[in-house]
Amino acid sequence: MQTIQMAHGSGGVQTNELIQKVFKKYLGDFLISDGEDGGVFLSDAKKYATSTDSFVVSPLFFAGGDIGKLSICGSSNDVAMMGAIPKFITLGFIMEEGLEIALLEKILDSMRNELLKTNLKILSADTKVVGKGSVDKIFINTTAIGEVVSDVSIKKLAEDDVIILSGSIGNHGGVIFCARNEIGISSNLQSDCKQLYAMLKPIFEKKIPIHTLRDATRGGLACVLNEWAEASQMDIAINEQEVKIDDEVQGICEILGLEAYSLANEGVCLIATPREFANEVLALLRAHPDGKNASIIGKMTKKITQIPRVILENPWGSKRFLDYPQGELLPRIC
Amino acid sequence: MQTIQMAHGSGGVQTNELIQKVFKKYLGDFLISDGEDGGVFLSDAKKYATSTDSFVVSPLFFAGGDIGKLSICGSSNDVAMMGAIPKFITLGFIMEEGLEIALLEKILDSMRNELLKTNLKILSADTKVVGKGSVDKIFINTTAIGEVVSDVSIKKLAEDDVIILSGSIGNHGGVIFCARNEIGISSNLQSDCKQLYAMLKPIFEKKIPIHTLRDATRGGLACVLNEWAEASQMDIAINEQEVKIDDEVQGICEILGLEAYSLANEGVCLIATPREFANEVLALLRAHPDGKNASIIGKMTKKITQIPRVILENPWGSKRFLDYPQGELLPRIC
Repeated sequence: MQTIQMAHGSGGVQTNELIQKVFKKYLGDFLISDGEDGGVFLSDAKKYATSTDSFVVSPLFFAGGDIGKLSICGSSNDVAMMGAIPKFITLGFIMEEGLEIALLEKILDSMRNELLKTNLKILSADTKVVGKGSVDKIFINTTAIGEVVSDVSIKKLAEDDVIILSGSIGNHGGVIFCARNEIGISSNLQSDCKQLYAMLKPIFEKKIPIHTLRDATRGGLACVLNEWAEASQMDIAINEQEVKIDDEVQGICEILGLEAYSLANEGVCLIATPREFANEVLALLRAHPDGKNASIIGKMTKKITQIPRVILENPWGSKRFLDYPQGELLPRIC
Repeated sequence: MQTIQMAHGSGGVQTNELIQKVFKKYLGDFLISDGEDGGVFLSDAKKYATSTDSFVVSPLFFAGGDIGKLSICGSSNDVAMMGAIPKFITLGFIMEEGLEIALLEKILDSMRNELLKTNLKILSADTKVVGKGSVDKIFINTTAIGEVVSDVSIKKLAEDDVIILSGSIGNHGGVIFCARNEIGISSNLQSDCKQLYAMLKPIFEKKIPIHTLRDATRGGLACVLNEWAEASQMDIAINEQEVKIDDEVQGICEILGLEAYSLANEGVCLIATPREFANEVLALLRAHPDGKNASIIGKMTKKITQIPRVILENPWGSKRFLDYPQGELLPRIC
């Protein structure tokens, strides 16, 4: 590893290698959020979850969203995935000299619409301008702070936990892929970009013991499931028939040889919960419009070899391993 | 205002215009941090201060610091300026394809050294990679969270408040200017880049009532003093003789026609405190190595015209107004 390559940004094997071998070497000692989407801090009786994310999506506007909406949803979802109510957000804008104000206003308006949907308040904001050519139009960093109400952790994953998927996969990745390559196939395809907290709220409020929650963004389902297998040292058995993939996404994948499991999502999450609560969680998800396609897709099982694996089983009983996404998937997906 | 111009990033009049006319139009309703460096949130008995900042400094390495050190100091200082103990930080890296790992490691090592000086812990971190040409090497966003221990606010500025400056001004701006323009004059000049909390700690611990604190970064002293005048609707009288400017900085300013008051600082702050506490604050600052050049530079006074102004008085009694910095100062100073 001599220089940063696009593959270092794809959320797969190389990203992990960069973080493990380079970032952790220097900053590992100070890190609170190891293995989770963000860090938790305790204040007297209350626990807060924090997560930061930079948004560099290209194109800036796409079917179903734009960089502004994405930057609010992304960090809001990251704290929701830590069992928290998204409460506060900070915004950092890096803008290129010459960026049209009209375009900036369109992005800000979209952020505003997303903030209006929740009770998120802006704690702090910063703007920087760099010369033409020093940044591609606009990048936005957001950091969300949420109040923890459900005690979830990747460390809680247990044998026989049921895995629930909240919606159909690959839509965000598919939309960006088509927009970037001007593929006509996707006329009806929309990014799934949305805040997930509203859908999860009833589950949190009923205090149903969720073990782990994760939104399947960069690297898609393949990345999250492999992280879960690795962290728990268990296999994960997935029933492929239950993983919903919209026809348009399926079409793109077949034509272009993509793997829907590795495509990014921006409004879909995975939930691991003890078997006895699975049906209640599923019913609560389905009762919300954003979770109407939720399904039970698999479970945590004892590993059958030395290495924990994600195993996909199709309706005809044949099995294959699902690996971490490798190499340069699709840059600037979020 | 049709497009983003470099002047929109200088921290002066145009930056303010962009924020007021564009950003606040859409996001103003959600903003907690209006007029301060960041936002405060309350958790049971405790209050937390948060501030976000993106670092885009060029060159990445300069005398006395680099983008890594700067990105920790900058946000740490922003929460210290809100009367808080810096506790947590989040890091967002945007890296260009082809960035050398050795260079990245140098930056991370510098961040590590700065984190070691305090008890700052990393709550969350994110890395993004964009294609060659989509960002200039590396940008870093940091968001700091601090526990508020001193109740400071720009709203507390009062008539007769004494204004204390913690060190000599213009060093960071001077260093970057020289590095950017390869000006040999500055061989001994070092950026003042440092975390200010250690110097302020004794003042916080003795619970001396500070009215307002602000580090004079982008836009320098000129920006902070004008913001204070505007927010308080008072004049500010500054005794020019007491504003320390190092010879090297003075030299650069004279040769190039720059105004030291508008040059950026990254380790100097302004403190406004009631008259009766001024000497104690000054003594505590001077007792710390980082505050050995601290001095009382002026005071808040009733405004003499309709418009509140910052008035500089030189040793010979002549006076001039100090305005907000205008136009494109020095881009990518932090």
